[in-house]
Amino acid sequence: MTKAKSGLRVAIAGLGVVGSEVARQLINRAGELGSAAGQPLHLVAVSARDRSADRGFLLDNIDWHDDAVAMARRDDVDIIVEMIGGSEGPALELARQSLASGKHFVTANKAMIAHHGSELARLTEDNNASLMFEAAVAGGIPAVKTLREGLAGNRISRVAGILNGTCNYILSTMEVTGAGFDDVLADAQRLGYAEAEPSFDVDGIDAAHKLTILAAIAFGQQPDFNAVSIQGIRDVSSVDFAYANQLGFRIKLVGVAEPGLMPRMQTCMLPLDSQLAKVNGVLNAVEFHGSPVGSVLAVGPGAGGGATSSAVLSDLLDIATGRGGFAFGKPVDQLTDASGVKNGAGPDKAFYVRLMVVDQPGVLATVTAILQKHDISVESLLQQGRAPGDVVALVMTTHETPVAVMTRALNEMEQLPIVKAKPVAMPILPVDMES
Amino acid sequence: MTKAKSGLRVAIAGLGVVGSEVARQLINRAGELGSAAGQPLHLVAVSARDRSADRGFLLDNIDWHDDAVAMARRDDVDIIVEMIGGSEGPALELARQSLASGKHFVTANKAMIAHHGSELARLTEDNNASLMFEAAVAGGIPAVKTLREGLAGNRISRVAGILNGTCNYILSTMEVTGAGFDDVLADAQRLGYAEAEPSFDVDGIDAAHKLTILAAIAFGQQPDFNAVSIQGIRDVSSVDFAYANQLGFRIKLVGVAEPGLMPRMQTCMLPLDSQLAKVNGVLNAVEFHGSPVGSVLAVGPGAGGGATSSAVLSDLLDIATGRGGFAFGKPVDQLTDASGVKNGAGPDKAFYVRLMVVDQPGVLATVTAILQKHDISVESLLQQGRAPGDVVALVMTTHETPVAVMTRALNEMEQLPIVKAKPVAMPILPVDMES
Repeated sequence: MTKAKSGLRVAIAGLGVVGSEVARQLINRAGELGSAAGQPLHLVAVSARDRSADRGFLLDNIDWHDDAVAMARRDDVDIIVEMIGGSEGPALELARQSLASGKHFVTANKAMIAHHGSELARLTEDNNASLMFEAAVAGGIPAVKTLREGLAGNRISRVAGILNGTCNYILSTMEVTGAGFDDVLADAQRLGYAEAEPSFDVDGIDAAHKLTILAAIAFGQQPDFNAVSIQGIRDVSSVDFAYANQLGFRIKLVGVAEPGLMPRMQTCMLPLDSQLAKVNGVLNAVEFHGSPVGSVLAVGPGAGGGATSSAVLSDLLDIATGRGGFAFGKPVDQLTDASGVKNGAGPDKAFYVRLMVVDQPGVLATVTAILQKHDISVESLLQQGRAPGDVVALVMTTHETPVAVMTRALNEMEQLPIVKAKPVAMPILPVDMES
Repeated sequence: MTKAKSGLRVAIAGLGVVGSEVARQLINRAGELGSAAGQPLHLVAVSARDRSADRGFLLDNIDWHDDAVAMARRDDVDIIVEMIGGSEGPALELARQSLASGKHFVTANKAMIAHHGSELARLTEDNNASLMFEAAVAGGIPAVKTLREGLAGNRISRVAGILNGTCNYILSTMEVTGAGFDDVLADAQRLGYAEAEPSFDVDGIDAAHKLTILAAIAFGQQPDFNAVSIQGIRDVSSVDFAYANQLGFRIKLVGVAEPGLMPRMQTCMLPLDSQLAKVNGVLNAVEFHGSPVGSVLAVGPGAGGGATSSAVLSDLLDIATGRGGFAFGKPVDQLTDASGVKNGAGPDKAFYVRLMVVDQPGVLATVTAILQKHDISVESLLQQGRAPGDVVALVMTTHETPVAVMTRALNEMEQLPIVKAKPVAMPILPVDMES
């Protein structure tokens, strides 16, 4: 699929943190990267909004384009690296035109792949090009390659990932400091760990894009962002961290994909002795479960110019050495339609439940009667301090329970006069890999 | 490099735990694996010592060979999977003949690759075949692929791995139980975690084979087992676990490879808040450090039929989909000779030191005078309990010190009349990835 060893001509669209880092690597490490590629990689063209910005490299021998899409129309470009972002607009137009003209396309654009991956993969196949997006999932962790190639011989039973460094940082900091979501978010924004408009991160959307891509590869289905259940971290209360700690858990936003079920982003309780619970701060992690391998975990930096450019370079080298392959591991025509997956919650789960109840005689009997009625078995129960007549927390963990049953029981509890707020419930993830 | 999509014919040499598992997977999951491969993978021939053993699959349509090497001479075999083991003998003969006849060769044989990797890679290049050994390093973790492809765009500055599950299990168990090496080894042998002849594992040889391979790929050098410094775990004393715990460390056998230096297997102190310290029991882990990526960690099962067969299947699928490539990431002629690497110990290191000294006045002054003379700065010091006239442990950690300087100081200390045993010293690994 690649040209002869005369070299590959690369154009970069978008010179933000990652695009500029990729450009600098291609320029400053041309010898090394050419050796790894088996042929020179020439940066021949770039496009960005502001030509005059200082990005740490010279534009002298590089063509500048005000219009990124123009680069797709050049005959003397072999690979387009797209770092514009956004699921639609110029990024999508660039992708379509690049692939239609047989150019290889490398991107970090998780939103675009989650929304338009099937269409783009088909263009790839029709035009004998490669679509590579290692940088779109978990930054510097080669998660796409691990799943699509390294574990390709497995029947995947679950992929579970901590896929957004901002959320993980906020949750880790809430746990350590005891501070509330709003305060920690404000700090994270000041430190540059969260955007001024944080919704994309804290509402789970960014992570859900990545989960969409992982699920597509893991289960051979068309990427379908609309078939993902998404919950963010805004509703996590600082009090839950204290209870989690007492019960031996840590709260994380985890994306879980299982075969035949809707992938879901949700805040979970992770047992402290699980490997995933130990991934704190801005780190990302992906845990792969399958047969025959068992469980494999990869941890690394999920964002930033260095980590993301490493993934882009890996894609460029794969293209240069003829390792492109099918975008999602198999031809698009063999991918199943994911829109029909059940909005189920998978196997029975253990739950953490927090009820805010009036501290009065009989509360415990009332609550446990509902649990008993639904055949829900309690594993542990915390009720601390006394404040007769006031509202206090009643915290419990359950044994494994069908999710639909737990939902009904929670709805019933919420109707009780003594229950003063919507019950908080989080699934407790099983430990697949003990440390 | 691969045949047309008419299918690939696979022969397996060696039907132990892994070989049999690979055979069962190829037979029982033929449809799935053929779909992932883009063409059928036919198991056409096997070879093992005992034809009559029950291995959970039927030999009806599979040719049996008493002599594995005979399979290399068949024209109707495309890929040989070698699960015989041993760096020389039939495995090596099979590899040579298979590759010389243009057959792809997939192996879990770390000893053979560590000793003969360059010769075999050259045969591969001369005969347009692929040599694949994902299963040779860290079992189910795609460590070879991660380093050779996933992080191919990086300049690697260090690879650090927990590469032998038996050693990690023994050290983890010594830490938890307080038992000594011999007792824990005996238990591990009873449980099947250690071989009756444990030397290969506990003396670090198996892990050093894997480290040799990782170093070759990481730094583009010929694999050279003789250019690896090897220490096992027999000398680790149970008392060191107690001190390690007090000081916030965990003892692990870690293989470390750095550019321009002799790779080394050694028992190290890992800060408890490092990711690698949390990899306990029979798990393996590899931490990759490089630029621009930063640090990436992969954790998983390092041995066993399931994990290892996953790696073998990944190699088969890479071959089937044309992703073979160069065995060590580049042509053999471009690999440097590793035999000239310095037997240095790399950058300055912090150390854990335990001296067994006579508890008498002036001991501390004598020891610290030697440290001062060598300009070694002490970070912490533990001397617990008093036993005048008896031998007690004097434990200290140092700030970063040149290894040669530390070696000289330890030699001087050993000569002191008050020092009653060879000083124990372990480097403290820096934390590259906090949890």
